[in-house]
Amino acid sequence: MALTIYGDHRLGNCLKVKWTAERLGIDYDWVETPGGAGATRTRQFLRMNPAAQIPTVVLEDGRSLAQSNAICLHLAEGSELIPRDPYWRAKMLEWLFWEQYSHEPYVAGRRYFKLYEGKTDVELDPEIMVRGEQALARMQAWLGATPYLVPDQLTLADIALVAYTRVAHEGGFDLGKYPAVKSWVGRIEAELGLEPAQSG
Amino acid sequence: MALTIYGDHRLGNCLKVKWTAERLGIDYDWVETPGGAGATRTRQFLRMNPAAQIPTVVLEDGRSLAQSNAICLHLAEGSELIPRDPYWRAKMLEWLFWEQYSHEPYVAGRRYFKLYEGKTDVELDPEIMVRGEQALARMQAWLGATPYLVPDQLTLADIALVAYTRVAHEGGFDLGKYPAVKSWVGRIEAELGLEPAQSG
Repeated sequence: MALTIYGDHRLGNCLKVKWTAERLGIDYDWVETPGGAGATRTRQFLRMNPAAQIPTVVLEDGRSLAQSNAICLHLAEGSELIPRDPYWRAKMLEWLFWEQYSHEPYVAGRRYFKLYEGKTDVELDPEIMVRGEQALARMQAWLGATPYLVPDQLTLADIALVAYTRVAHEGGFDLGKYPAVKSWVGRIEAELGLEPAQSG
Repeated sequence: MALTIYGDHRLGNCLKVKWTAERLGIDYDWVETPGGAGATRTRQFLRMNPAAQIPTVVLEDGRSLAQSNAICLHLAEGSELIPRDPYWRAKMLEWLFWEQYSHEPYVAGRRYFKLYEGKTDVELDPEIMVRGEQALARMQAWLGATPYLVPDQLTLADIALVAYTRVAHEGGFDLGKYPAVKSWVGRIEAELGLEPAQSG
């Protein structure tokens, strides 16, 4: 029995897990499970993840695991996607927690409200845009000095943060204002073998 | 030079780091740094943490680290606060990411708005209460069957989640509705040597 990923291919939190598995050469089955609908509230799904969130995976031994960054950390344990140096491993974790707390709710959130809930700009809390811009500005300041989020090495931090940053324009953010972020997105997409999500 | 913790003693995200250090017998200096004020926006603070968030620590070698759960993971690496078993370590990480994404913004958020921003109930988005109740209900379902979040062992998941759960009443949540959570809070407080935060 291979790894089974329950996820929505439109959502970066799910794609992170897919890309991590592919980078590590881990076989998986993908079960398309739309976010925001009833698919995560069935009795079968809630047995796997009572939090009713995607992605959720079922491991080879039949046990389940949730939270995109926890799944990626588990799959990548001992691999080159996690720094061996304790300090840089901790900095990678800092980026992963920051991503879920200070980046995803705004950069991914605004995209979700626009694309999947059909909200127009005037219906959206302006604070979401402010916080998203702050997140991108922080990345810009850091990525001006280093090619990866953890210097010298592609890690889970790049995989996690590229997932929604590369489609930030779909949430109304202009990566043209953040040139170091834009270059980094192109670099990580190339390393992961992804088609560029941004035009121009 | 000992570990230096920049934190606000009123905030669970900062107390997590304090409790983890104390549990592990790590010496530290505490620099009281109020959240929500200008103290995290000075040039000196932003050099340590450009995200302007507390807690932030400066390690013994002078390097800085942020994000409460990343700091706790770094301090506790190799200790009994992190399961050795890879699956249970991953489940602990699942709880840590869930805490920051699905618990803290609501259970801690509502407390913060009420206590430190002086908001009244009618000024608060009702969705915050709904999401907070969902988080507590999820913990109730899990903790009915196990004394700790990761079975059989006190881990960082308990330390992280008890931090704001024990003061949930200050945000308007009634732990009386969640008896297994309430018992667990008392158990973890006792293990950490904390005065009970809830009366009755």
